Amino acid sequence: MSASVILPDLATQVVVPVAAAVGIAFALLQWFLVSQVKVTGEGGSAGKGGASEALIEEEEGLNDHNVVLKCAEIQTAISEGATSFLYTEYKYAGGFMTVFAVLIFVFLGSIEGFSTKSQPCHYSVGKTCKPALANAAFSTIAFVLGAVTSLVSGFLGMKIATYANARTTLEARKGVGKAFIVAFRSGAVMGFLLAASGLFVLYIIINLFGIYYGDDWEGLFEAITGYGLGGSSMALFGRVGGGIYTKAADVGADLVGKVERNIPEDDPRNPAVIADNVGDNVGDIAGMGSDLFGSYAESSCAALVVASISSFGINHEFTPMMFPLLISSVGIIACLITTLFATDFFEVKAVDQIEPALKKQLIISTAVMTVGIALVSWLGLPYTFTIFNFGAQKTVHSWQLFLCVAVGLWAGLVIGFITEYYTSNAYSPVQDVADSCRTGAATNVIFGLALGYKSVIIPIFAIAFSIFLSFSLAAMYGVAVAALGMLSTIATGLAIDAYGPISDNAGGIAEMAGMSHRIRERTDALDAAGNTTAAIGKGFAIGSAALVSLALFGAFVSRAGITTVDVLTPNVFIGLLVGAMLPYWFSAMTMKSVGSAALKMVEEVRRQFNTIPGLMEGTAKPDYATCVKISTDASIKEMIPPGALVMLTPLIVGTFFGVETLSGVLAGALVSGVQIAISASNTGGAWDNAKKYIEAGVSDHAKSLGPKGSDCHKAAVIGDTIGDPLKDTSGPSLNILIKLMAVESLVFAPFFATYGGILFKYI
Amino acid sequence: MSASVILPDLATQVVVPVAAAVGIAFALLQWFLVSQVKVTGEGGSAGKGGASEALIEEEEGLNDHNVVLKCAEIQTAISEGATSFLYTEYKYAGGFMTVFAVLIFVFLGSIEGFSTKSQPCHYSVGKTCKPALANAAFSTIAFVLGAVTSLVSGFLGMKIATYANARTTLEARKGVGKAFIVAFRSGAVMGFLLAASGLFVLYIIINLFGIYYGDDWEGLFEAITGYGLGGSSMALFGRVGGGIYTKAADVGADLVGKVERNIPEDDPRNPAVIADNVGDNVGDIAGMGSDLFGSYAESSCAALVVASISSFGINHEFTPMMFPLLISSVGIIACLITTLFATDFFEVKAVDQIEPALKKQLIISTAVMTVGIALVSWLGLPYTFTIFNFGAQKTVHSWQLFLCVAVGLWAGLVIGFITEYYTSNAYSPVQDVADSCRTGAATNVIFGLALGYKSVIIPIFAIAFSIFLSFSLAAMYGVAVAALGMLSTIATGLAIDAYGPISDNAGGIAEMAGMSHRIRERTDALDAAGNTTAAIGKGFAIGSAALVSLALFGAFVSRAGITTVDVLTPNVFIGLLVGAMLPYWFSAMTMKSVGSAALKMVEEVRRQFNTIPGLMEGTAKPDYATCVKISTDASIKEMIPPGALVMLTPLIVGTFFGVETLSGVLAGALVSGVQIAISASNTGGAWDNAKKYIEAGVSDHAKSLGPKGSDCHKAAVIGDTIGDPLKDTSGPSLNILIKLMAVESLVFAPFFATYGGILFKYI
Repeated sequence: MSASVILPDLATQVVVPVAAAVGIAFALLQWFLVSQVKVTGEGGSAGKGGASEALIEEEEGLNDHNVVLKCAEIQTAISEGATSFLYTEYKYAGGFMTVFAVLIFVFLGSIEGFSTKSQPCHYSVGKTCKPALANAAFSTIAFVLGAVTSLVSGFLGMKIATYANARTTLEARKGVGKAFIVAFRSGAVMGFLLAASGLFVLYIIINLFGIYYGDDWEGLFEAITGYGLGGSSMALFGRVGGGIYTKAADVGADLVGKVERNIPEDDPRNPAVIADNVGDNVGDIAGMGSDLFGSYAESSCAALVVASISSFGINHEFTPMMFPLLISSVGIIACLITTLFATDFFEVKAVDQIEPALKKQLIISTAVMTVGIALVSWLGLPYTFTIFNFGAQKTVHSWQLFLCVAVGLWAGLVIGFITEYYTSNAYSPVQDVADSCRTGAATNVIFGLALGYKSVIIPIFAIAFSIFLSFSLAAMYGVAVAALGMLSTIATGLAIDAYGPISDNAGGIAEMAGMSHRIRERTDALDAAGNTTAAIGKGFAIGSAALVSLALFGAFVSRAGITTVDVLTPNVFIGLLVGAMLPYWFSAMTMKSVGSAALKMVEEVRRQFNTIPGLMEGTAKPDYATCVKISTDASIKEMIPPGALVMLTPLIVGTFFGVETLSGVLAGALVSGVQIAISASNTGGAWDNAKKYIEAGVSDHAKSLGPKGSDCHKAAVIGDTIGDPLKDTSGPSLNILIKLMAVESLVFAPFFATYGGILFKYI
Repeated sequence: MSASVILPDLATQVVVPVAAAVGIAFALLQWFLVSQVKVTGEGGSAGKGGASEALIEEEEGLNDHNVVLKCAEIQTAISEGATSFLYTEYKYAGGFMTVFAVLIFVFLGSIEGFSTKSQPCHYSVGKTCKPALANAAFSTIAFVLGAVTSLVSGFLGMKIATYANARTTLEARKGVGKAFIVAFRSGAVMGFLLAASGLFVLYIIINLFGIYYGDDWEGLFEAITGYGLGGSSMALFGRVGGGIYTKAADVGADLVGKVERNIPEDDPRNPAVIADNVGDNVGDIAGMGSDLFGSYAESSCAALVVASISSFGINHEFTPMMFPLLISSVGIIACLITTLFATDFFEVKAVDQIEPALKKQLIISTAVMTVGIALVSWLGLPYTFTIFNFGAQKTVHSWQLFLCVAVGLWAGLVIGFITEYYTSNAYSPVQDVADSCRTGAATNVIFGLALGYKSVIIPIFAIAFSIFLSFSLAAMYGVAVAALGMLSTIATGLAIDAYGPISDNAGGIAEMAGMSHRIRERTDALDAAGNTTAAIGKGFAIGSAALVSLALFGAFVSRAGITTVDVLTPNVFIGLLVGAMLPYWFSAMTMKSVGSAALKMVEEVRRQFNTIPGLMEGTAKPDYATCVKISTDASIKEMIPPGALVMLTPLIVGTFFGVETLSGVLAGALVSGVQIAISASNTGGAWDNAKKYIEAGVSDHAKSLGPKGSDCHKAAVIGDTIGDPLKDTSGPSLNILIKLMAVESLVFAPFFATYGGILFKYI
């Protein structure tokens, strides 16, 4: 079929699933390696925990049976808490999925009045396409599959994270390098599992749906967009619900524990401490995973749907059509090579090698992947082809598409490093914020907010540059593959991202198990590096969300049959204005949700301290389970209003005001939301690290601000608490807002184009 | 000429200047009435201060010579400080004005290569228009006149405000009603002077320029746009420079006085206390005045320039052409009637009547003005006419234009009341924020930020609705007159707005003069009402700024010859994205500016406390003048970076990236900036009033949080300090950002259209 392409279609049919399989196998291998660290109660060899290893560098408490037992116990509690949250979430997500699946089927099926007759195609002139009813049915199936894939990936990620945290703690007894390897390998399990299974399921459904659709690629890839919607709507639960969970528990635990009772963080007497640790997994692992999986699925779908009405689709060139999947396939291999640099080629031996090791991962994966993209663009694309560009076809060369993917990839790296610059306490911005604590909490907050605002500038220029280049070269297809480029190193990105909460938990377990100061220092070093990588991961997630949303927006506009979105029309302009307001409305809701949920937690923690005798003295055990339940219930309940805002806005606007206004809303929410998301994440990250900077007291400057408990430190703690909901709930949740509204509009585009805008039609 | 219009052209030529003259006369009358309150050292009748009045209700210290002397002394210090700031500002503004005037002349003159030959018109086909060189010259003159009018109005407003503050204090000895009248009348001087002189100068230059331009209305009203740019660019100095001044002094004074030295606010021992009081006048009176004058001048110019290429302009119908000026004329009369309700028809007798009296002003002026608009639309417009709509002519009826103006007017009222709801401590939002202080400063900040975000929703819907209606009915002309509608009650709006800082100063003077607790309570009550009206005024300023910017944007687009601004082109989209980022960049700068300037103030105040013996004991006097000088110099210096960002962005984007990208930038900055501006103002206002709520302790709930000095109150003070730069500097400054970029683009539009976009042209 595609004579001008070097890679034969058959090879493509092999390469994609094999790469996915390799990714999954690699994830399982990492899991196996982590499982070699024995924790009592599992391997049976209690007390021997790792004692069989040849090189035991350290001494303290290595064979202390009690410590291992305690770690196992805490791990079990965290794991159970996380599982209980996920099951509750799944119950609601299942209900939501059912209702929404019905909605998709009914809305899309109604376009041709549920007719079962084939229709003339929209873009492939003269050909016959499958009926809208079939598209409705297959979109619904794709939606469910996307949702289930997201849930399963999140579940497995959480399992391995809660499986790894105590193992990291135990390994920390042997040295920082050992602990690092366990935490990093566990992160890699998550990363590779998610990237590979996402690719695998997408590949399968394209092939399965293809059996029915045959030559109707237009309909086939329209139906596939449901996969993106499914993945993304579960991210709503993961990111928003998880974000509320983690910060309700964190803020609630701190407000009573640190402020009222004056006990340290992660103290086992605090009833909310397990909920807090569960929250790290729920929000940062499952939430981030589902967010990035959503982005991945959406950008693939956006690219495919635009490709299907471009020359690839019209001429049925399979290999170029699969270009997005080929990129992801190569990405898995590139990340696999990169991982070996952290686990095998080099070894982390000292505390100060951790952060460079993680940063090297980003650089190596980007460099390797650049070669990979060049390869795929050379082998998998014809030299010249055309891309659908809002009504016209635009001629593109394969090297131009290489540039599109590469600019996305490198923009991701730039955003990552800028985020690091603004949130790591190794640089002046965070140190300035720490310094402003001298004059109290107010100046700390003012400087922190200003830092967040300022940190937006370069990432926006980076995103704007990638959009300009990819948009100019290959229209919306270019933007979609630029997003895929940024996400092509997702396995590595997720690995270093998941590494953070695992290390954080490991530190919590060390504290709770009463392990020595020296071990706690090691886990703190792991955690500090994790904080920075978490901020980088968030920057990355936001950057890719911006590109993905634009690609989805473009796909929506194409599918709705719009050729211009003119700001100089009242419909579009008010859409833009109201769209730009939505992130504020949404943030107000999520911040308020954290506040209310945290207040419930405060009441319960206070109740337990007041009614359980001996709790403060450490002779009685708190009731962890109730706190876990409160966080779980509150987070699910509190995510309904913001969730409804996201899900209903496109439906209401599209139905009543039509596709032009909806286009305005999507564009407005995108350009406004990305700014708040970046600034909120970075402000929060900077406050957190400013506090850590004062606590650690490494430099003379830092020492002059500290120590813990000084006025400066108190001011820094206030900033940190304010930053918590900003950086872990409202900020990252905005990714979901902008992506989900766009993908939902895309899926419902045919409905809106047919029936939308009733307010203007009939008034 | 305009047979179909009831009002003859001659009548229009009379009505406009007469209304302006009446406004100026009314302002002078109010000034005269205020001057009847004698302050020592001025009237010569020292010690007798008001003793000649028949009804002296109160007793305390009325004839205390010392108190009157002290008040006079403080007033003089404040007045001198304010004047010294203004002169410094004028020095820099003068330099800026000269440079920019040259720029305007050169850029606009270069369009036809400085040719002195007449050219065929753009819109009036077949006719000859004046050369670009003439337009360049007259635009430059209009620019200078706009700037000078703005400066003079600001100067006079400040003079009357600093003239009135001590008089308000002295009248407070006689009762709250007397004090209210003085403060309110002084505000009215400012309001009427500004509204009337703005109208008057505009009327004059239209007529004078008309002598040269003759029938070339296209060129005439192009040149007039310079007036808007002049007014608005001075607002940059007033709002941004003034905003930095006031908060540098305020935060600096508080950080040393309240926090370090534990002395109350407005304590005369604090060296920064005079600078703080000067700041109230500089930021809230001169700044707000120049901001609203800018809006007024800009919306008039935007309406006129669109009208000149619509049927009014093409057919040379003078009365309908002057419709914007007729609205403003009627507005002055409507506000005059409204003022009498506060000063003559009703009397404020008790503290709880102050706020209702001010709010009634808003409602009455809106109601009266609605009738006025109907009258002008009926008398001054033909029943049917056409309006230029991006390349086409759109048919409009006079009643539709009435709706456009009215919807703007009423949207302003809605925004005002929503702002009040979210910032007054009489309602639950602020009370909830106050309540959140129970759990500390962090929750206070989280709830305050969430409140600000939430408070954006309804104002945005109100603005969106007015835009939709006016845009749909009469294209960009509709939007421009909607903005004029919102600003038609500017005299009343400014009066109640200027009332706030005057009362605030009066309270400060009472404190510094050591007046009794009872008088301080009265000035506090005046001040509290002023806080709410200040927030309303800010909401109003932002709302009108949004409409004005859109109108200017529309005029720019028309003048640049663009017919669509398509989001689906890379140029426009990246413009939108980067434009939406600019408010963040700008806010980061202004917030940082306040921080740096405040820090300089802190050092000076500390130095004085440490080096002047007897200062803390009250036996030595601080050096107020140095603090005033520091605030002045710092504010001018610190406004350069944000000022440069505003002034250079349109020039750089227009020249290098062209008019499409610039359109995107303007639209992006507008839709994003308005949200931050509203949320920042309201968050700050809410924190301020949450603190006041706890301090006043009126309800049981409030008492449970207080008293002053409690942990709750301390948390509230932190919020208040954070809110200071948000509500008085970075938030309101964004008005300037969005308006000034738009009007600058409008003035330079012919240049950009001819030479712009060199990056895309030559690469």
